Amino acid sequence: MPRLLVLTMSCPDGIGIVASVTRFLADHGGWIVEANYHADEKDKWFFMRQAILADSFHLSVDEFGDRFIPIADQFGISWKLSDTRHKKRLVLCVSKQDHCLSDLFHRWKSPDAGFDIVAVLSNHEDLRSFVEWHEVPFVCIPVGPGVNDPAFEEMARLYGRFGGEGMILARYMRILPPWFCERFDGQIINIHHSFLPSFVGARPYHQAYERGVKLIGATCHYVTGDLDAGPIIEQDVIRVDHGDSPEGMARLGRDIERIVLARGVQYHVEDRVLIHGNKTIVFR
Amino acid sequence: MPRLLVLTMSCPDGIGIVASVTRFLADHGGWIVEANYHADEKDKWFFMRQAILADSFHLSVDEFGDRFIPIADQFGISWKLSDTRHKKRLVLCVSKQDHCLSDLFHRWKSPDAGFDIVAVLSNHEDLRSFVEWHEVPFVCIPVGPGVNDPAFEEMARLYGRFGGEGMILARYMRILPPWFCERFDGQIINIHHSFLPSFVGARPYHQAYERGVKLIGATCHYVTGDLDAGPIIEQDVIRVDHGDSPEGMARLGRDIERIVLARGVQYHVEDRVLIHGNKTIVFR
Amino acid sequence: MPRLLVLTMSCPDGIGIVASVTRFLADHGGWIVEANYHADEKDKWFFMRQAILADSFHLSVDEFGDRFIPIADQFGISWKLSDTRHKKRLVLCVSKQDHCLSDLFHRWKSPDAGFDIVAVLSNHEDLRSFVEWHEVPFVCIPVGPGVNDPAFEEMARLYGRFGGEGMILARYMRILPPWFCERFDGQIINIHHSFLPSFVGARPYHQAYERGVKLIGATCHYVTGDLDAGPIIEQDVIRVDHGDSPEGMARLGRDIERIVLARGVQYHVEDRVLIHGNKTIVFR
Amino acid sequence: MPRLLVLTMSCPDGIGIVASVTRFLADHGGWIVEANYHADEKDKWFFMRQAILADSFHLSVDEFGDRFIPIADQFGISWKLSDTRHKKRLVLCVSKQDHCLSDLFHRWKSPDAGFDIVAVLSNHEDLRSFVEWHEVPFVCIPVGPGVNDPAFEEMARLYGRFGGEGMILARYMRILPPWFCERFDGQIINIHHSFLPSFVGARPYHQAYERGVKLIGATCHYVTGDLDAGPIIEQDVIRVDHGDSPEGMARLGRDIERIVLARGVQYHVEDRVLIHGNKTIVFR
Repeated sequence: MPRLLVLTMSCPDGIGIVASVTRFLADHGGWIVEANYHADEKDKWFFMRQAILADSFHLSVDEFGDRFIPIADQFGISWKLSDTRHKKRLVLCVSKQDHCLSDLFHRWKSPDAGFDIVAVLSNHEDLRSFVEWHEVPFVCIPVGPGVNDPAFEEMARLYGRFGGEGMILARYMRILPPWFCERFDGQIINIHHSFLPSFVGARPYHQAYERGVKLIGATCHYVTGDLDAGPIIEQDVIRVDHGDSPEGMARLGRDIERIVLARGVQYHVEDRVLIHGNKTIVFR
Repeated sequence: MPRLLVLTMSCPDGIGIVASVTRFLADHGGWIVEANYHADEKDKWFFMRQAILADSFHLSVDEFGDRFIPIADQFGISWKLSDTRHKKRLVLCVSKQDHCLSDLFHRWKSPDAGFDIVAVLSNHEDLRSFVEWHEVPFVCIPVGPGVNDPAFEEMARLYGRFGGEGMILARYMRILPPWFCERFDGQIINIHHSFLPSFVGARPYHQAYERGVKLIGATCHYVTGDLDAGPIIEQDVIRVDHGDSPEGMARLGRDIERIVLARGVQYHVEDRVLIHGNKTIVFR
Repeated sequence: MPRLLVLTMSCPDGIGIVASVTRFLADHGGWIVEANYHADEKDKWFFMRQAILADSFHLSVDEFGDRFIPIADQFGISWKLSDTRHKKRLVLCVSKQDHCLSDLFHRWKSPDAGFDIVAVLSNHEDLRSFVEWHEVPFVCIPVGPGVNDPAFEEMARLYGRFGGEGMILARYMRILPPWFCERFDGQIINIHHSFLPSFVGARPYHQAYERGVKLIGATCHYVTGDLDAGPIIEQDVIRVDHGDSPEGMARLGRDIERIVLARGVQYHVEDRVLIHGNKTIVFR
Repeated sequence: MPRLLVLTMSCPDGIGIVASVTRFLADHGGWIVEANYHADEKDKWFFMRQAILADSFHLSVDEFGDRFIPIADQFGISWKLSDTRHKKRLVLCVSKQDHCLSDLFHRWKSPDAGFDIVAVLSNHEDLRSFVEWHEVPFVCIPVGPGVNDPAFEEMARLYGRFGGEGMILARYMRILPPWFCERFDGQIINIHHSFLPSFVGARPYHQAYERGVKLIGATCHYVTGDLDAGPIIEQDVIRVDHGDSPEGMARLGRDIERIVLARGVQYHVEDRVLIHGNKTIVFR
C-alpha cells in the first residue's frame, strides 16, 4: 500500500473544474492512481475524489492549502486533503453485543485498515476484558433513562480527549441526544439492524418477523438528530423465510450487520463518502 | 413434467399428523415426490404440502374428499387437493407499462408454466394490440377517480365470467376498493415496486431516490384492504448508487419487478403458498 | 435523455493526461455529465470515458478528430467519439430458444435503449414469426456440421450488408469459426449459461448438476477464437439446491441469462466497455 | 433452544417410508419441530431429517436403536440419531491467516453454536497466542514438503486423542494425503477461496484476476482425495470489478470465506448435510 494524498471536494457544477484541478495536480507532479466524479443533475453540484501518489507530489499538505486557494475561490470549492500515512482515530461505542466490535478489532489488525481504534466507550461493563486484552482503553459510562443524561457530556468529553476523528456506534443501544448529533455531525456512524427506512427504532427483527418480509437487512448511516434517518452509507440484505424466528433472524442478521458496518467504516476512513444533504456520494 | 396431485393443508400442531396423513397416502398407493412441512411455534399451527405422482394414486380427487374426512376431522385439518393437469386460469390487470405483462406472456409459453392467461383487463387501451396478437381477450375498463367507481363491479363480473382463479396486478396503477379485496381474498396478487414495508404508495422509486437508499427492491404480495400491506410472497433487491436518478432506478427496477412477480405467481399456481394471518408460508 | 458525445480512450499511464484532455474539452465548451477513469497498475495503462452534453460542445465529431490530434499524439492515445443520437445497429443470432431474443426486443422499445435491432440470423426457422411480427428481417441460414461451413461466410456477408455494429449471440448454439471471430473482434457478444470459467462448452446446467454446485450463473463475454474464453463483460448467479434438476436449473438460469446479456449489451452500446488484453474495463 | 433429537436417514425410495417412520416417532410421543425430505429422482434414493423435541420422546438414543431395527430393515435405511445436548467436538487446522479461525471462535461463544472447539492444529506458530488466550490447546506440527510427511500421521493421532468429530480446515494451506482423506471421509471440511469448480489449487484470487471475472466466491466442501473436488456444502460470491487487484480481491474475499465456512460448519454440526455420492443434500 503506497502512501497516498486523497483530495475530496465539491462545488457548484460548471465547465473547466476538472481541467483546472487536474492541471494543478499535474503541474506539481501528482500521479493520480484513482479518480471519481459525480455531478448531481438536480442540484447542479459537483463532487470529486482524487488519490495521488504522495511520493510523486511536490507540495506538502500545508503548501497545497496555500497554492490551491485561487482555484478553490474561482469555482467555490469546499475541499479536504488527507494523507493515508495518518490513520483515522476511531472511538467505538458498544453495549453488550460484541459481533460488530470484534469484527472491527479483527479488521484493525490488517495492514490496509486505514484506522486506529483509540478507545471503546460502553454503557455496560460486559466487553471490558475483550477490549483491554487488545490494550485499548475501555471506559464504562452508565447512562440514565433521560435523553439529556449528563453521561452524554462525559462521552463527548472523552471523544475529544482521545482525539477522536470518528465515532462508531457498533450496536450501542442508546439514542444520542440532538445536541450530541449536531456537535459531531458527519462524524458518528451507526449500524441499524434493518433495511432502512423499514423498521426504524427498537426490535427491528421482531418487526420484520411480524411483517413477514422475505429479506432482512442492515444499514450503516451517519447519525443525525432524526432517529435512524441520517444519510445512508451502505446497506445489504440476506434471505429469510417462514421458518425463521425473530431470534433466528437476529442470528443471520449479525453477519450482515458487521459486514455492512465494516464497509461503511472503511469507506469513511478512506474519504470515499461525501455527504450531500441527507444523502451520500460513495466513491468506491 | 409428470402429472401430480398436490395436497396442501393446515391444522393445530400435534403429534401424529404426518404419520396419519402419510399413512393414508401410502395406503392408496401415493408415491410422494416432494414434501414440505412447517410448524409455527408461536401459534402452534402446522402446515404441509405433499406432491404425489397422480399415476401412482388409487383415488380420484372426489374419492379423496370422502375418504380423507375422518383424518381431517380428527386433527381439524383444512385442506385442498389440486391436479396439475388443470392449469390455473389467470386474469391479468395492467395499465400502460408492459414489462410484467410481456414477461408473464413469455413464461406462459413454457411447458412447465402451470397457468393459463385467460384475459387481460386494463384501464387503458395501450396494450391491446400486444395482448390480442397472443389471441387473449383484452377488455378496456376505464376507471373514474372515485374508489367506488362502478368500473370495479364490471371487473369483478368479468373475472367471474372468465372463470378466473387468480387475478394478477401486473403494474395495474389503480387501488382496488375494499369490498373487491375482500371478495377475492387470497386470489389477487400485486407487484409493488419497492422493498416493502418501505415506500408504500405512489412513486416508490422517487421516494427511494429522496431517501438515498443503496438498494431498491420489489415485493409480490396478496392484496388486502390495507394498501401495500397484505401477506408478502416474495421480495428481491438490486444495488443502486448516488449516480442513479429516479428514472434510472425505475429502469433497473423493472428487471426485479418482473422476476419477483413471476416467482410469486409461479409459487401461487403451484400451490406452494399458504396464507397464515398476514404472513405466508412459501414451500419452495 | 439528452444527446451526448461519448469519448473513450486509452494510453500509457502518465502525468497530465486528464488535465490535458479535460482542458481541451472545457476549451470547446464541453459540459461533462459523467466521467470514469481507470489506471491499470500492472500494465501502466490508462483508460478514460467522458460523457459530454452535445449541445454544450462547439466541435462536430469530425472537427474533434482534427483538433484532438496533438493531444492524442503527445500521450499516444487511442480514442473513439460516439454520438448517442446514432443508435448502434445490432444483428442478433439465435437458434430455437427465445428468452434472450424476446428480452432484447422488449428492451429495444424503451426510449433509452441505445440500440436498434436491424436483423436476426438463425440456423433454424422456429423464431421467424416472432421476429417478423416486430417487422425485423429474419434470415434462416442452416449450418452444416463442419466448423468451416460456408454458411458462416453468408452470415459475415449479411452482417456487413445490414450495417451491423455489433453481433449478439442470444443463445446461438453453434461455434463460430476462428476467422469469423478474428474479423469481428470486439464486436461479437455471447451469453454463456454458466459462471465462467466453470462449465465451458456444452450442457453447462448438466455439468453444474453433476458437480453439485450451490449457485448457477451466466456470463456475457466477447467472442474470440478460444471457446468461452473471451473477455468477460458481466456475470451473475442465482442460488440452487439439491432439489433442482438440470431442467429446473435451466429454467431458473434463463432469468439470469437474459439479465446478464441485457446488461452486457447495454454497457457495450453505451461505450462503457473497454477491452484490455483478455479482460474488460466496464465503466458503469 | 430446546434439546432436540435429530434423526437423519437415507434409503431406496419407495411408498410408505415416511408413514412408517413418522408413525414410529408418533407412537413414542415424538413431537416433530422440523422435517425435511428429498427424493433423488435419478438415483431413486430417499433422504430425510426429523428434529424431535427430546422432552416429548419416550425412548433413549439406545432404545431407539433397538426398536427402530424392523423399520430400518424393511426399507433398507441407513440412519443416525443425534442429541443436541452433545456438542460436536471440532478440531481446527490453520496456517497463518486468522480470519476464518477468529470467526469460528466468535461463533463458538454463541449459545446456539452446536459445537465445541477442542483443539487447533497448525503448521506454523503464528496463531498460538490467540488460540491459547481462548484456553484451547494449540499444537504446532511443522509439515515437510512431501505429501506423505509423517506429520500427517501425528495430525491423525491428535485428532483421535482430542476426540474429534469434525476437522475444519480454516485456511490450512497444505494438501492432505489421500490416506488421510479416506480415513476421515465425511469428517473434514475445507474452505476454498474460489467459486469451485473454477480456480482449483493455488492462488485462486490471482487466477480470478487474470481471467477477469466479475464475481469472486468461496466454497465450503468435504475433503476427498481429489483436490478441491469433494462434495460442496455451501458457496457464495461477491462482486468485483476491473479496479480490484488480486490483493483487493483477497481482502473482499475474506468476508465471503468466513461466512461460507461458518454456514457449512453450522449445517454440518446440526446434521443438516447428507452426502450422496459426490454431492450433498443440505436441509436448511
